[in-house]
Amino acid sequence: MAKVKVAVNGYGVIGKRAADAVAKQDDMELLGVVKQHPDYSAKVAVLKGYKIYVPDQASMDGFKKASVPAAGLAEDLFKAADVILDCTPGKVGVTYKPLYQKLGKKAIFQGGEKKDVAEVSFTAQCNYDKARGKQFVRVVSCNTTGLSRTLWAIHQAFGIAKSFVVLLRRAADPNDIKTGPINAFIPELTVPSHQGPDVQTVIPEVPITTVALKANSTLMHLHVVNATLKKPATKDAVIKLFQGTPRVKLISGADGLQSTAQIMDYGRDTASLRGGRDDLMKILVWADSITVKGDELIYLMAIHNESDVVPETIDAIRAVMNVCDVKTSMAKTDKALHIGEGEFPATLLVGEKGKETAMLC
Amino acid sequence: MAKVKVAVNGYGVIGKRAADAVAKQDDMELLGVVKQHPDYSAKVAVLKGYKIYVPDQASMDGFKKASVPAAGLAEDLFKAADVILDCTPGKVGVTYKPLYQKLGKKAIFQGGEKKDVAEVSFTAQCNYDKARGKQFVRVVSCNTTGLSRTLWAIHQAFGIAKSFVVLLRRAADPNDIKTGPINAFIPELTVPSHQGPDVQTVIPEVPITTVALKANSTLMHLHVVNATLKKPATKDAVIKLFQGTPRVKLISGADGLQSTAQIMDYGRDTASLRGGRDDLMKILVWADSITVKGDELIYLMAIHNESDVVPETIDAIRAVMNVCDVKTSMAKTDKALHIGEGEFPATLLVGEKGKETAMLC
Amino acid sequence: MAKVKVAVNGYGVIGKRAADAVAKQDDMELLGVVKQHPDYSAKVAVLKGYKIYVPDQASMDGFKKASVPAAGLAEDLFKAADVILDCTPGKVGVTYKPLYQKLGKKAIFQGGEKKDVAEVSFTAQCNYDKARGKQFVRVVSCNTTGLSRTLWAIHQAFGIAKSFVVLLRRAADPNDIKTGPINAFIPELTVPSHQGPDVQTVIPEVPITTVALKANSTLMHLHVVNATLKKPATKDAVIKLFQGTPRVKLISGADGLQSTAQIMDYGRDTASLRGGRDDLMKILVWADSITVKGDELIYLMAIHNESDVVPETIDAIRAVMNVCDVKTSMAKTDKALHIGEGEFPATLLVGEKGKETAMLC
Amino acid sequence: MAKVKVAVNGYGVIGKRAADAVAKQDDMELLGVVKQHPDYSAKVAVLKGYKIYVPDQASMDGFKKASVPAAGLAEDLFKAADVILDCTPGKVGVTYKPLYQKLGKKAIFQGGEKKDVAEVSFTAQCNYDKARGKQFVRVVSCNTTGLSRTLWAIHQAFGIAKSFVVLLRRAADPNDIKTGPINAFIPELTVPSHQGPDVQTVIPEVPITTVALKANSTLMHLHVVNATLKKPATKDAVIKLFQGTPRVKLISGADGLQSTAQIMDYGRDTASLRGGRDDLMKILVWADSITVKGDELIYLMAIHNESDVVPETIDAIRAVMNVCDVKTSMAKTDKALHIGEGEFPATLLVGEKGKETAMLC
Repeated sequence: MAKVKVAVNGYGVIGKRAADAVAKQDDMELLGVVKQHPDYSAKVAVLKGYKIYVPDQASMDGFKKASVPAAGLAEDLFKAADVILDCTPGKVGVTYKPLYQKLGKKAIFQGGEKKDVAEVSFTAQCNYDKARGKQFVRVVSCNTTGLSRTLWAIHQAFGIAKSFVVLLRRAADPNDIKTGPINAFIPELTVPSHQGPDVQTVIPEVPITTVALKANSTLMHLHVVNATLKKPATKDAVIKLFQGTPRVKLISGADGLQSTAQIMDYGRDTASLRGGRDDLMKILVWADSITVKGDELIYLMAIHNESDVVPETIDAIRAVMNVCDVKTSMAKTDKALHIGEGEFPATLLVGEKGKETAMLC
Repeated sequence: MAKVKVAVNGYGVIGKRAADAVAKQDDMELLGVVKQHPDYSAKVAVLKGYKIYVPDQASMDGFKKASVPAAGLAEDLFKAADVILDCTPGKVGVTYKPLYQKLGKKAIFQGGEKKDVAEVSFTAQCNYDKARGKQFVRVVSCNTTGLSRTLWAIHQAFGIAKSFVVLLRRAADPNDIKTGPINAFIPELTVPSHQGPDVQTVIPEVPITTVALKANSTLMHLHVVNATLKKPATKDAVIKLFQGTPRVKLISGADGLQSTAQIMDYGRDTASLRGGRDDLMKILVWADSITVKGDELIYLMAIHNESDVVPETIDAIRAVMNVCDVKTSMAKTDKALHIGEGEFPATLLVGEKGKETAMLC
Repeated sequence: MAKVKVAVNGYGVIGKRAADAVAKQDDMELLGVVKQHPDYSAKVAVLKGYKIYVPDQASMDGFKKASVPAAGLAEDLFKAADVILDCTPGKVGVTYKPLYQKLGKKAIFQGGEKKDVAEVSFTAQCNYDKARGKQFVRVVSCNTTGLSRTLWAIHQAFGIAKSFVVLLRRAADPNDIKTGPINAFIPELTVPSHQGPDVQTVIPEVPITTVALKANSTLMHLHVVNATLKKPATKDAVIKLFQGTPRVKLISGADGLQSTAQIMDYGRDTASLRGGRDDLMKILVWADSITVKGDELIYLMAIHNESDVVPETIDAIRAVMNVCDVKTSMAKTDKALHIGEGEFPATLLVGEKGKETAMLC
Repeated sequence: MAKVKVAVNGYGVIGKRAADAVAKQDDMELLGVVKQHPDYSAKVAVLKGYKIYVPDQASMDGFKKASVPAAGLAEDLFKAADVILDCTPGKVGVTYKPLYQKLGKKAIFQGGEKKDVAEVSFTAQCNYDKARGKQFVRVVSCNTTGLSRTLWAIHQAFGIAKSFVVLLRRAADPNDIKTGPINAFIPELTVPSHQGPDVQTVIPEVPITTVALKANSTLMHLHVVNATLKKPATKDAVIKLFQGTPRVKLISGADGLQSTAQIMDYGRDTASLRGGRDDLMKILVWADSITVKGDELIYLMAIHNESDVVPETIDAIRAVMNVCDVKTSMAKTDKALHIGEGEFPATLLVGEKGKETAMLC
């Protein structure tokens, strides 16, 4: 079978990971990436053997001046592609849609775009089939992906009558030196924050209200989930459920993974076992935190916002190309991206209380 | 009527504020403060005319060497006092209790101590009368105080069937240069965190579950409250309720108060109108965030953890001395501490949506 | 003598402090302040009794909608003034200059403007006389002010053959929630950074090279100064020199003032002794750090960037109005602003080494 | 030739990297690592196939309880080794020295130990030969290593009459969630800080004074170096010198590498090209910052404190075993660790000024 020809438009936090991921699939070919400025990311792309295309002549001149080879204009790249991964910044993707339409190309958008940019808002394990054969699909954002993966599993097992989620967001990407805050907590004062309705673009069955905060950190988002269940559950049953949920991993404070910092340190320690990035594409649910109280289930989870949508993006390519079913696609993706490698079982404290971090007042 | 003679044991974040507050009451006399090291805080206490007592002879020698006058040993101070405000660090207060008992003195402990250190866990507007005439009272922690003030009001107006609160905590005091984290979110993995049960030491009628997180900031705590109500409520009714709740102030993102940083900047701007500290002793509830959805009420609030318990501590003195009723005490305290000065009404956006902070993913 | 009528254009970090400072002078009258948005700062200005003027009709409408009283348009305010304090953001001041010229008004600019906006770049104790009677004077930036105050004293006492300064800058104002970095050190890669040449606009006699870095903090700048002296000096002589230098204060790590955080905590503790702001308008030099090695003098100092230029701005008013000499002006300013109150002598460790902060590698 | 048998005592930030590095050398065998707690690092070590030894029976019990296999006690591991890499925390290494002596083993200490723990303080390119055949060698700290590499090159080319360095230190390791500061700059008030004398343990020929500061960041240290040269130099000559200096790499703000955050992002982007860690073992000197002014040379550099000493540690093994000369060892080390891979030439701006980061005041 011919490989799917893929173009990546935008080479930032998601774009560079999407390009790496495409390059690792045996049924896809990375035709090239679109990048505007000949900075260190462009130079690393060259080192990796990726062809760089530029959005316009001004960019072309910039690349020439910087002696970074540019293979041509973005439109030429798009013409040669079967699927375009739009990894441009939020709300820029929609401005490219007319071009993709004109060229008659399929495109995968990211969660920075509004839902109506695409026919389907996508999380592989929830609604892959809806995206099969479509022209435009939107992979939902990092937060929405994390919520969809876990809440969907909970909903199928126990039914969710309602859910309330507080999202604590890292405020900037690790390489962003302009964005703060330095010493503040910033709430989203409109309740619900947009993530709640966004989750329902993927799993409309699950009632959800979200409140978002942000604080000084660059590493990961952290969610506190409170779901009111329709059927009785136990902590053990939820643990077992998550042990079997795709792209969800239980972790434990008892293993020293007590914060987003230690989780990312674990990511760095195991990067060599997963092909060289510290990315953690699974949603990390703290087993210690899982608590059932009456009909309420509470759990805490960490989301590596830079990478959790990458496997979804790869699966979305296979869905729009309609080349295989969800199980096959997810298995291929996971294997190629070494998802699940470098892992060990979370220590489950039975009848023991976890160590409290000193939090007196 | 003779003034109540007050000793302050411990002169850190709370102790120095408690001392200032006592000094401002016309029915109290600050006999002195106990301080261990002759550092800048001690030297400022001298500038303010406070007498410093030391816990032991070693401290006395340290003060002598540093040429900071020490008036005597702590025990001498305690003997002369009617009430001792124990503002020692968490879990140290309990070690002083036998001495207070031996001397037959009344003492007010802070929220760093466990509830059984005292006969009553105290928030003035909730249970002042229970503390009248008691020997030992515990003013609950900054977080518990904030929750007690607001939830008690909600409970009396609408009834609370259950409540779920996520507390985002500033991780260190502003002058603490040793404590992190620098770049991490740290969850309390044991659910519920201790604040939930602690609230019930004050208002046992209110069912509550809390989850605590901490992050890189020194300014204020921020709470997301979700209360399931027994009676129907509206946003307007809740706004009116909080407008009339003692030591609670509505604020609005529409006034530029969109984060804990801007709130504290407002605190600094108005310090001269409140006697010279940027302290904000009221609980600050964002009017914008108040949301009623079915039987659920959601609101966000900011807590100035350094100071919100200070007026409670003053009221607790009058309660244990049994010198007046709650209304009189709170009114006297508020006036002396200029609580309520430097304020303006929160801008209420009617039929308008607040500006969203850019939070794309 | 008639009071000098002062208008303040811009009501941000510097403008609000300048207005407060003018209001406290017995020989000045604050006519009003110009503010664009009716946010919390505007509402606090109203509480303080300041008249607010707006730059244009659009702003006027905004104030009306927000029910914040606006007294008129900026130009009306300027017309009534003897001196305008331009506290608009950097590079905006210069755009107002033609208006000030048209109205024939004197104006004091801040250090965010380039030197050629004014006839004199000003630090009171260095060159007050040069500014007497001038129409346009620029008070140099917080960093340049700190360097001018200390280096000028050193130069007069010992002669400076050359100097090298590394400036570690807090990256954002305390109420700025947009600016980072969160987890990065950002160097100014062009050497020298602009502060060196800027110091020479005030004290051209002192050769200086500066390198600037910025990091995650909102509190103060910190300078490391290395000056090569022409005449021999001793640590004691430098200590005595700084003890007698206006608007410079020696501090000591031995008093617990080991960081910018503890310094600002001290500022908060003494705010009530200085009229209600935690501002520290003196340059704070660590006595412990003063080191003479051969012909090199090294010292470290902290600069409260929000406030150190405020007294300079007040003195600049008297200079351009030519109402008194430098000594008289500085004495009046210092007294009105309580500069020097809330202080104690720095502990000088003789023959003793300061405690090392644990910094192993 | 038989492989050198290596034991790693301590499996923290340096220990885990040292173990990985040993495992990659074709002339060394990693016998095992010593680890106290069965946390995530231990579990990852197992995944990597490393044998874990424990310091005592209590640790052994802990590992058993956690079901993490422990191969035996540390002393057994040490007995089987030719060389022990002591990567225990600072000042702990010295407590192990008697054991190493009793067992008659060679040991490499890290820079957290004082210089007299070993016969030689070591940086490969400066003094490899001095360490040949010795029993105890100390690899100097991350900061000292960076200064030794660059100053030694400068000294050999131009002669250094004196040098002054300000070190801005990241305050905590990335996985350290306890250490701050959150919002402060902390100076080392004793001048010189210990790094200056420490550099002279490696290159006593170079006069140096250092001042150390620390701030809220976890990523890298940043040095500002000012060296007074004996012979005339030019920016071009210094650039050429550093282009040829081992384990030093020129970088440029013009490539978007304007901060430690972007450098580490580049490290992550190229990790897959260097075996899977984002480590940057070379010292990164900003070409833009190199400035010659009279006899003074100024340059800024970034130091990846977690990893720059790792290749030195490997070379130190070959030195104490006396198996080859410095050139051979450094070449083998660099190749095995992929040092120099994932690189591109720094963009040199000729006759052009770098973009200034906005740093107005």
